[in-house]
Amino acid sequence: MKEMNVTGAKICEELPHPETRDIVLPNQSDYVSHIAVDIGGSLAKVVYFSRKPTCSTGGRLNFTKFETEKIDECIEFIENLVAARRDPELKDKIVIKATGGGSHKYYDNFTKKIKGVKVEKEDEMECLITGLNFLIAEIPYEVFTYSESDPMCFEYSPSAPPNMFPYMLVNIGSGVSILKVTGPGKFERISGTSVGGGTLWGLLSLLTGAQSFDEMLEMSKHGDNTNVDMLVGDIYGTDYNKIGLKSSTIASSMGKVFKKNVRQSVGNFRGEDLSKSLLYMISNNIGQIAYLNAQVHGLKQIYFGGCFIRGHSITMDTLSYAINYWSKGAIKALFLRHEGYLGAVGAFLKHDETRKRSASFSETFTNPQTMPKNSVDACEVLESVPLNLS
Amino acid sequence: MKEMNVTGAKICEELPHPETRDIVLPNQSDYVSHIAVDIGGSLAKVVYFSRKPTCSTGGRLNFTKFETEKIDECIEFIENLVAARRDPELKDKIVIKATGGGSHKYYDNFTKKIKGVKVEKEDEMECLITGLNFLIAEIPYEVFTYSESDPMCFEYSPSAPPNMFPYMLVNIGSGVSILKVTGPGKFERISGTSVGGGTLWGLLSLLTGAQSFDEMLEMSKHGDNTNVDMLVGDIYGTDYNKIGLKSSTIASSMGKVFKKNVRQSVGNFRGEDLSKSLLYMISNNIGQIAYLNAQVHGLKQIYFGGCFIRGHSITMDTLSYAINYWSKGAIKALFLRHEGYLGAVGAFLKHDETRKRSASFSETFTNPQTMPKNSVDACEVLESVPLNLS
Repeated sequence: MKEMNVTGAKICEELPHPETRDIVLPNQSDYVSHIAVDIGGSLAKVVYFSRKPTCSTGGRLNFTKFETEKIDECIEFIENLVAARRDPELKDKIVIKATGGGSHKYYDNFTKKIKGVKVEKEDEMECLITGLNFLIAEIPYEVFTYSESDPMCFEYSPSAPPNMFPYMLVNIGSGVSILKVTGPGKFERISGTSVGGGTLWGLLSLLTGAQSFDEMLEMSKHGDNTNVDMLVGDIYGTDYNKIGLKSSTIASSMGKVFKKNVRQSVGNFRGEDLSKSLLYMISNNIGQIAYLNAQVHGLKQIYFGGCFIRGHSITMDTLSYAINYWSKGAIKALFLRHEGYLGAVGAFLKHDETRKRSASFSETFTNPQTMPKNSVDACEVLESVPLNLS
Repeated sequence: MKEMNVTGAKICEELPHPETRDIVLPNQSDYVSHIAVDIGGSLAKVVYFSRKPTCSTGGRLNFTKFETEKIDECIEFIENLVAARRDPELKDKIVIKATGGGSHKYYDNFTKKIKGVKVEKEDEMECLITGLNFLIAEIPYEVFTYSESDPMCFEYSPSAPPNMFPYMLVNIGSGVSILKVTGPGKFERISGTSVGGGTLWGLLSLLTGAQSFDEMLEMSKHGDNTNVDMLVGDIYGTDYNKIGLKSSTIASSMGKVFKKNVRQSVGNFRGEDLSKSLLYMISNNIGQIAYLNAQVHGLKQIYFGGCFIRGHSITMDTLSYAINYWSKGAIKALFLRHEGYLGAVGAFLKHDETRKRSASFSETFTNPQTMPKNSVDACEVLESVPLNLS
C-alpha cells in the first residue's frame, strides 16, 4: 500500500449514527484493497477501505465487529468484501492483515475459507500502538476527555498533540493490557489485569440475565449501587474524616449482599443496581491500576482504549473520576472515538512498512475546541457489502 | 493497665483447634479487666484477657468474632464477660475499648446495654498498626510466609525481626485498606480498594447460594476456574511468548461465561468453578494493587491482615503468587496467625498509654525455623464465659 493520504481526513458525523463512525479520506488516490481484522477474546474487529463505485478518488475507512464465538460470520463478511473488490487483477493480490490472539487460533479457518488471499499475522501489541499513534496524530477530533458537563471535550484539534510521547495505553477488552509508549514504535507491555470487560459481561449475564452489552449498560443507567454496595457511611454511620473518606465512598463493592445463614438469590436484588455496582467496581479498579502504573513509570497521559468502553457515559465518567481522584487532578483520562479498533487500524496500516509514521506532524497544535459542524462533502457511500454494526 | 508482661508469651497450640488461637501469657501478674472490640463492616472482633479461677498469675488473650449484622449478640457476649469479672470493685472500672467504623455507629447500643462500664473509642488505623506492631515484635511464631510445600514458614523466631520498618499493611476485610508504616506510631493510609472480602462473599452468595464463608472456601477447593475464566491459551491457542504470557495465564476472569443472545443462568455453571475463579480474581487483584503501591512507596515488606484470609490456603497461595509474580521474586507476602484481630489487639493495647511499645525488642532475631512442639505448660483454661467461635 502506498502511503495513505490523510489530508482532510475527518470522522464522518452525518450518516445515521453507527457505533463507530467511518473516517473519511477525501484525498486518498489509490484504491486500498487489503482488509484488517483484530480477533480478541470476545470480539473480532474489522477495518477496511471503501470507495463509492462512481468515484475515482477519495474513500473511507469502515469499522465493524463480530463476536469471536461466531468467527464464521466474520470470515464470511470478509469473504464478501474480497468478492466485492471490483478489479479482478487486484483481487488476487488482496491481503488480510490479522492480529490479536485469534489471528493465531483461527489462522487456518481464514486461509481455508477465503481463497486466493494471503493472510499475514501481525503482533497484537505492535498493532495496538501503531493504530493508536495514527489516530492520535492524524485524525482530527479523535481524542477527547469526558466530564458530565462536557462529554466530548476534544484535546487536540485539528490534529497532532504537542508532546505525544511518552504515554500509557490501557486497552480494555475481555482482559486488560497496559502499555507504556515512549516513542514511535517504542513500547512495552508493563502490566495488565484479568478483571476486564469479560468479567463484567460474564457476571452480569449470570446476575441479570442480560443478553447483550447494550442491555447491561442500559440497566446500569437506571440502577442505584448503594442498594448493594457497602459505603463508608454504612460502616461508620458518618464520614471517616481523619483519613479523608467520605460517607458516600464505596468501602466494599457488593458488600451489602451477603448475610450469613441467609440464602441469597439474584431475585432479591434489582438487576439495575447490580449492573451499576459492578460497572463502577470494574471501571474504578481499572482506573486505579492504571493510575498506579502511571505513577510507577512517571507517565502523565493515559489513553483508554478497547471495546469495554463503547462510548458509554457512566464507564468513561468512572474511569475519569478514578484517574482524577487518585492523581489528585494531575492526570486526565483520554478517550478515543475509535477506541475498540486500535489493533485493527494498526494491522491495516502494517500493510506497507512505509506507512509507519514517525512523530513528524504536519499540522500545529491548537487548543481544545468544539468540533465544527461543517458538512462532510466528501462523504462517500459504502460499497454494497453486508454491514453488521451490532 | 500496667505494662503487659509478654515474657514467655506463646500461641496456644494444644487446645482443640479454634479458628484463631489464644495467646498464652504465663507471666502476666495483674488481672486485665478491660475488653476490646473492633467492629468492621461485616464482622465484630473481640479480644479479652482471661485467667483460670484458681490461679493468681498468668492468663491468656482470647479471640472471638460476631457478625456486625447481629451486633446484639456481640454486645450480649461482652455483657456476660463483664458480669463474669469477679472482683466487684474492679467491675465498676471496666473499660471497653472500641474501634472500627461500628464503634461510632453502635456506640449508643453499647453504652445503653452494658451498664457501669466506660466505652472508649479508638481510631481504626491507629489500632490496626498498634496491634500489628505488637504481634510482629512480641509474639513468637506469629509471622509466616506461605507456599504449597511449606504452608507456615515462620519468619522471625522466637520474636523480633531485625528491620521491622518500613513495611506495608494490606488489611482485607469487607473492603481493603493499605497502610505504609515507617516507624512505631508513624503510618499513613496510602490506598485502598472496594474489591475485598465483601465483594467475594456477596458475589458468591448470589452465584452459589453458599450461606457461610467456610462453605464458599470449601467449594473453591474443588473447583476448576478454567471452566469459566478465559485463559491466554483460549484466545491465542498457545502462549503469547513475545510478552511472556503463558497459555495458562488468566486473560479474563469469568471471561468464558457471557455469550451474546444466550440467556445464562447460574445453573449452567458449577458453584465450585465460580468460587475458585472469583477467589483467584479478588486475591490476585489485591496482590497486584498491593505490589504496585509497594513499588510507588519503595516498600519491601508486605503484611496481609484482615478477616478475608482466615488461614485459607488457596487465598494465601494466590496472594503469595501475585506478590512473587509482580515483584519477580523480590518481595514475599507475609501472613499472621491473628490476621483478623489486628485492630482489636491494638484497641486492647490502647488502654494504657504506657503500653505503646517502642521498637525496642527484648529478643534477638534468629533464622526462620519450624515451630517447636513443646508443651504449653502455662495454658490456662478459659473462664466460664460463652464462646462463639463460629
